[in-house]
Amino acid sequence: MSPGDILLVNARSIAGARVEVRVRDGVIAALGPALEPHGETIVDAAGDLLLPALVDSHMHLDKTLYGLPWQPHAAAANRRSRIETEKTQRASLAQPVAVRAGNLIERIVAQGTLHCRTHVDVDPVLGLENLDGVLAAQERYRDAISIQIVAFPQSGVIACPGTLAVMKAAIDAGADLLGGIDPVGIDGDMAGQLDAVFGLAERCGVGIDIHLHDGGAAGAAQVAAIAERTKALAMAGKVAISHGFCLGDVDDGEFARLADAMAESGVANITHAPGPTAMPPIRKLDAAGVTVAAGSDGIRDSWSPYGAGDMLARAMLVAWRSGFRTDSDLAFAFDTASKGGAAVLGLADYGLAVGCRADFVTVPAQTLAEAVVTFPVRSLVVRAGRIVARDGALI
Amino acid sequence: MSPGDILLVNARSIAGARVEVRVRDGVIAALGPALEPHGETIVDAAGDLLLPALVDSHMHLDKTLYGLPWQPHAAAANRRSRIETEKTQRASLAQPVAVRAGNLIERIVAQGTLHCRTHVDVDPVLGLENLDGVLAAQERYRDAISIQIVAFPQSGVIACPGTLAVMKAAIDAGADLLGGIDPVGIDGDMAGQLDAVFGLAERCGVGIDIHLHDGGAAGAAQVAAIAERTKALAMAGKVAISHGFCLGDVDDGEFARLADAMAESGVANITHAPGPTAMPPIRKLDAAGVTVAAGSDGIRDSWSPYGAGDMLARAMLVAWRSGFRTDSDLAFAFDTASKGGAAVLGLADYGLAVGCRADFVTVPAQTLAEAVVTFPVRSLVVRAGRIVARDGALI
Repeated sequence: MSPGDILLVNARSIAGARVEVRVRDGVIAALGPALEPHGETIVDAAGDLLLPALVDSHMHLDKTLYGLPWQPHAAAANRRSRIETEKTQRASLAQPVAVRAGNLIERIVAQGTLHCRTHVDVDPVLGLENLDGVLAAQERYRDAISIQIVAFPQSGVIACPGTLAVMKAAIDAGADLLGGIDPVGIDGDMAGQLDAVFGLAERCGVGIDIHLHDGGAAGAAQVAAIAERTKALAMAGKVAISHGFCLGDVDDGEFARLADAMAESGVANITHAPGPTAMPPIRKLDAAGVTVAAGSDGIRDSWSPYGAGDMLARAMLVAWRSGFRTDSDLAFAFDTASKGGAAVLGLADYGLAVGCRADFVTVPAQTLAEAVVTFPVRSLVVRAGRIVARDGALI
Repeated sequence: MSPGDILLVNARSIAGARVEVRVRDGVIAALGPALEPHGETIVDAAGDLLLPALVDSHMHLDKTLYGLPWQPHAAAANRRSRIETEKTQRASLAQPVAVRAGNLIERIVAQGTLHCRTHVDVDPVLGLENLDGVLAAQERYRDAISIQIVAFPQSGVIACPGTLAVMKAAIDAGADLLGGIDPVGIDGDMAGQLDAVFGLAERCGVGIDIHLHDGGAAGAAQVAAIAERTKALAMAGKVAISHGFCLGDVDDGEFARLADAMAESGVANITHAPGPTAMPPIRKLDAAGVTVAAGSDGIRDSWSPYGAGDMLARAMLVAWRSGFRTDSDLAFAFDTASKGGAAVLGLADYGLAVGCRADFVTVPAQTLAEAVVTFPVRSLVVRAGRIVARDGALI
């Protein structure tokens, strides 16, 4: 036993049984209805529901204005204006990327998100400035949260010459994956962007996570092309389509073809449960064999004023947009914010099982379904066996 | 001055200025940046944002299972099954209507909802049983919340013979308005249901609030027919269409015709920001002159597992589904949960102005837009000048 070891007692499992958790050296050493204390620090869950740590599979830590005074949304109602507005605002922000990212990281850890994937803007003008800020935050909070970084070409790859070289530099500097964005809608060159990004990913041996907002037939063609390249390069499990709104607005036959292609090639879908836009039919994706995960997307940035990074609240939104009502469907919504995300991020030691890292939360809810619809404040957040937050506040 | 009078100090107005509120005999007697204490009890808002009381324009207090152990959703994915499942479950519930309604009322008051409109099922089998329960709760909580009751023919009017007589009996027993439900989709007889309900409303001198889920052309025809009858009977301001999903799925030309007809006849729209269904374009309705309000709809009942009756969180959902991002749009979303609701409910003394009843809340937010996107716990809830809740808990 180490001095920091804990025994979580008096918790309730998702199955509804009393459960206790013995943590040794940051790892779950035992799970059971009644464990004998062996001198660990006893932590009383007070009957609350025990859940695995939350996973946010789509963030933009470099963009957030979290912690700054309220900033009214300034862009016009289109993507180009949002990109331009962001560039204009960036120069005058009172806090650098590392500080703003840190503000938000502290908030999400307090809400039990202990793993995340963040896109970080890179382009020839910005260079690696945002990346450096997020890398600094990643290092500062390494004991609290694991952060995966996508080198994200917000302004396009072909449309913004020189970006690919900066993406390569970002990987060399510590980014984990390559991003992409609407090869048709932003670059107007589907093959051009996909060839460039997949080619670089192959050379660097990294995964890919592509923003795809384009709807309808154009979006569908891009989904098919991404699946085709993923299959050709045998990158199953290393490629994700973020958003993929088109999956929610094509007809049933086309959807079935796309879902099968994604499943066969191993391309995941990451949704933020869009408000006014088509929601991908995630139960059907799952049934077809596609891994589905959820993320916050922009949190209080020049793109979106919404959110505080609560992935239980996001699971509620995912469920709400999907019309989920049954306990089984609500549990699936939770999965998108937990083990679905862990699968997309490739987390090896994730879960509530012996041998997994002791990353978990407790919430005052009777059942998992109730936790999803009410998204109560996390009563405990435990990271590698250490209590990092209580009742929504960092310790 | 009366012994219960208060002076709220150190609050922030929606306009961003420091504001204080003098309450005399439950009424706002003065509002200003710095008021002289005249012996009132001083209540410190600690710099929090002052908002008018929240209004929930669409509830089902009789259906809620709030306060009971978690009940997994048992119905199949269609309206008929939900109606039948509800009838089956009703017999075995451990708490009567008055108690369950009271559980939820206490929760919503703690969240600052001080006015609501609830539909209450009536039919020949149920009689006035649910109504009696809600009337008992209405009386019990009369000092905390004003409750408007709609006699609601959940199983149809024509499809469920005898219901109209029970609706009439409900009005005689204390219900305030008549309801309706999908004259085409449930009754298969548009003119039949509308003639019956409008005719009874005219005889009783009460308003109407009709559930309309039917989409597309069928829904549009019903909106037009409701507007026509409202105009013919000069019932402007006394008729509302709840849901009206069809308003979100007809083409622009048809929408414009319906919106104009609703505005001209004085028919309001009440939305709960549906998840998977089309969202009425509420900014366009407002621009056309239609009053728009928001409501929770079912809260943890045999129809829906969602919600806890937080109308700030509902304003967020309304905004999210509408794609709102600007402060102005977010403020409009708040209006649907406050003054829009007050307009639909016909509340005469509602608002943050001298002479209005002192019904208000404070929240820890810098601006109204931030309050909508974060829906923080209400730090204070004041009803007729009396503090009824603090930090989310009833006093």
